[in-house]
Amino acid sequence: MDRIKETIERIEPLNEAAMESARARQDTLTKPRGSLGVLEDISVRIAGITGDYMPEIKDKVIITMVGDHGIVGEGVSAYPKEVTPQMVYNFLSGGAGINVLARHTGARVVVVDMGVASDLEIKNTGENFIDNKIAYGTASMTRGPAMGYEDAQKSIEAGIAVLEKEMENGVDIVGVGDMGIGNTTPSSAIVAFVTGEPVEKVTGRGTGLDDVGLKNKIAQIKTALEVNSPNREDAIDVLAKIGGFEIGGMAGVMLAAASHRIPVVVDGFISGAAALIAYELSPKIKDYLIASHLSVEAGHRAILEHIGIEPLFNLNMRLGEGTGATLGMSIVDASCKILCEMATFEEAGVPDKD
Amino acid sequence: MDRIKETIERIEPLNEAAMESARARQDTLTKPRGSLGVLEDISVRIAGITGDYMPEIKDKVIITMVGDHGIVGEGVSAYPKEVTPQMVYNFLSGGAGINVLARHTGARVVVVDMGVASDLEIKNTGENFIDNKIAYGTASMTRGPAMGYEDAQKSIEAGIAVLEKEMENGVDIVGVGDMGIGNTTPSSAIVAFVTGEPVEKVTGRGTGLDDVGLKNKIAQIKTALEVNSPNREDAIDVLAKIGGFEIGGMAGVMLAAASHRIPVVVDGFISGAAALIAYELSPKIKDYLIASHLSVEAGHRAILEHIGIEPLFNLNMRLGEGTGATLGMSIVDASCKILCEMATFEEAGVPDKD
Repeated sequence: MDRIKETIERIEPLNEAAMESARARQDTLTKPRGSLGVLEDISVRIAGITGDYMPEIKDKVIITMVGDHGIVGEGVSAYPKEVTPQMVYNFLSGGAGINVLARHTGARVVVVDMGVASDLEIKNTGENFIDNKIAYGTASMTRGPAMGYEDAQKSIEAGIAVLEKEMENGVDIVGVGDMGIGNTTPSSAIVAFVTGEPVEKVTGRGTGLDDVGLKNKIAQIKTALEVNSPNREDAIDVLAKIGGFEIGGMAGVMLAAASHRIPVVVDGFISGAAALIAYELSPKIKDYLIASHLSVEAGHRAILEHIGIEPLFNLNMRLGEGTGATLGMSIVDASCKILCEMATFEEAGVPDKD
Repeated sequence: MDRIKETIERIEPLNEAAMESARARQDTLTKPRGSLGVLEDISVRIAGITGDYMPEIKDKVIITMVGDHGIVGEGVSAYPKEVTPQMVYNFLSGGAGINVLARHTGARVVVVDMGVASDLEIKNTGENFIDNKIAYGTASMTRGPAMGYEDAQKSIEAGIAVLEKEMENGVDIVGVGDMGIGNTTPSSAIVAFVTGEPVEKVTGRGTGLDDVGLKNKIAQIKTALEVNSPNREDAIDVLAKIGGFEIGGMAGVMLAAASHRIPVVVDGFISGAAALIAYELSPKIKDYLIASHLSVEAGHRAILEHIGIEPLFNLNMRLGEGTGATLGMSIVDASCKILCEMATFEEAGVPDKD
């Protein structure tokens, strides 16, 4: 618990001086002021996050956290839980969506077992793998808490440790992604509970439920909320009762990144639910979060509105894994290159408007 | 004229068989079907364009076409026309926005003088430069046609020639961009005339006009439309009377690319106006056009709606040069990599939904 507290206490406001210098530089570059829109705004925010008015994004890291969910036993997912470990192997051999997009954008992928419900057989891998298995999946949250309070703490602490370990290899920006059959269900439960939106509104089809499946999923979430009645004042209790190990891990990564002034790119719905947990633990984190895309998954909009952040794009994606985050990261990278590499009016000898 | 006609006649429908194979392959990849949304759809369209169900995007080219506009003499721009040649030098020394973003996305930039109103002094350059100067800028379209009918043809033909010459160096995808002080004015005139929208609705502040400047710009466009009354049945007449050399050039690039089954990424408002000219010449071009972003410039939405295409993203950009196109191109590239590089359920040993 101390580690979570210490991490939160280290989160500082954005560096206003660096932001002013970055904005001033943007206004000297050879383009009409403001004509690169969001690209300019992001670069200024990255300056505020890093404290460097000409920030360079070299080391891009996607942390994909994996966990299983007891609630899958209640028929909330279109895919069996056996898919979770197989997808870990797919990540580690480079064949998954996140691997393809991370190669495209020049990011490295770190895969973390936070709670896969089987023993993984990890041999030589092309990607980094970290074993942080807290348990063999969560318990079904319709029958009691998904995990104990201490395990919820542990999952956040593990996320902090993962980010801090990765910093040894260099992290200029981090994207958080997820994998875990069934994990839209705890995510919808968290979103409904934290934002106060009706369960129906923030519960979607996940990997592809039909109407009957969706109805059941909504009913299971309502049961879970009733059975557990999480403590509104304690986000760790929320995570324990209706969350998941990978969700706690991602929240930890976000808190740690913010505490080290590293920008965090949030992926879609499940990492969004993790962002909600992190935000409830410390609203200071908001300035460090960059929402990549708007997911198709119902309820993602409610997350972004609750925190008060705008997504960069909407490509009707809903895969998770960090796929949206890695595309978003590339846009952030582009924005910093604009700030650092464009010629000024003076350098280029271009007459300015004034 | 024959070259334009021949080019248009070569444009064929999408290859349905390649699209079916691409869609079938997308459905075997290790992700819930459809979960990569627009990325999946684009990859299928690129398959249809290229005729290859696993298309690779290696050679990415941005063609930035430059021209000056006589209408600038009527006070329609916040910047003087001296900026146009200076920006060409900036492009050629690699300091402009398009250079930074093209380096970021791995595209090469080809700069084309279609009608800069001064003699350029081009020495050694880091980027490709093509001299296709048709005239020293257009005439003011408030006093007669912006250019003669033959020059309008020539500008389109020059665009065709540029694309076909670039194909010698390899072109898997092409993005079209523009530079030319004052060129939102002819673009708005074209958009108003072709789409039938009121001039007020499709005329914006360009590089940064104030209210008085915007009012004048609208008045000048109305005068130009009255003075010229272009022929609704002849897009070349529209281009001649209220267009620009770089607009014609971009239309030519688009037609040529479509005729050679090369996908075209359209940038913002000015390249959008060029797309309108190309579309009026041959609606078959629509299938080959990918709209990158939605520009801040008023009237861009009217272009996209008229053609019936959806932009990939909206980052409040309005710089032109091809900056939006190069980011869009990177998304197209990502979509094709997903199609080509992801593991199938069978390859990865992942249990499928069925």
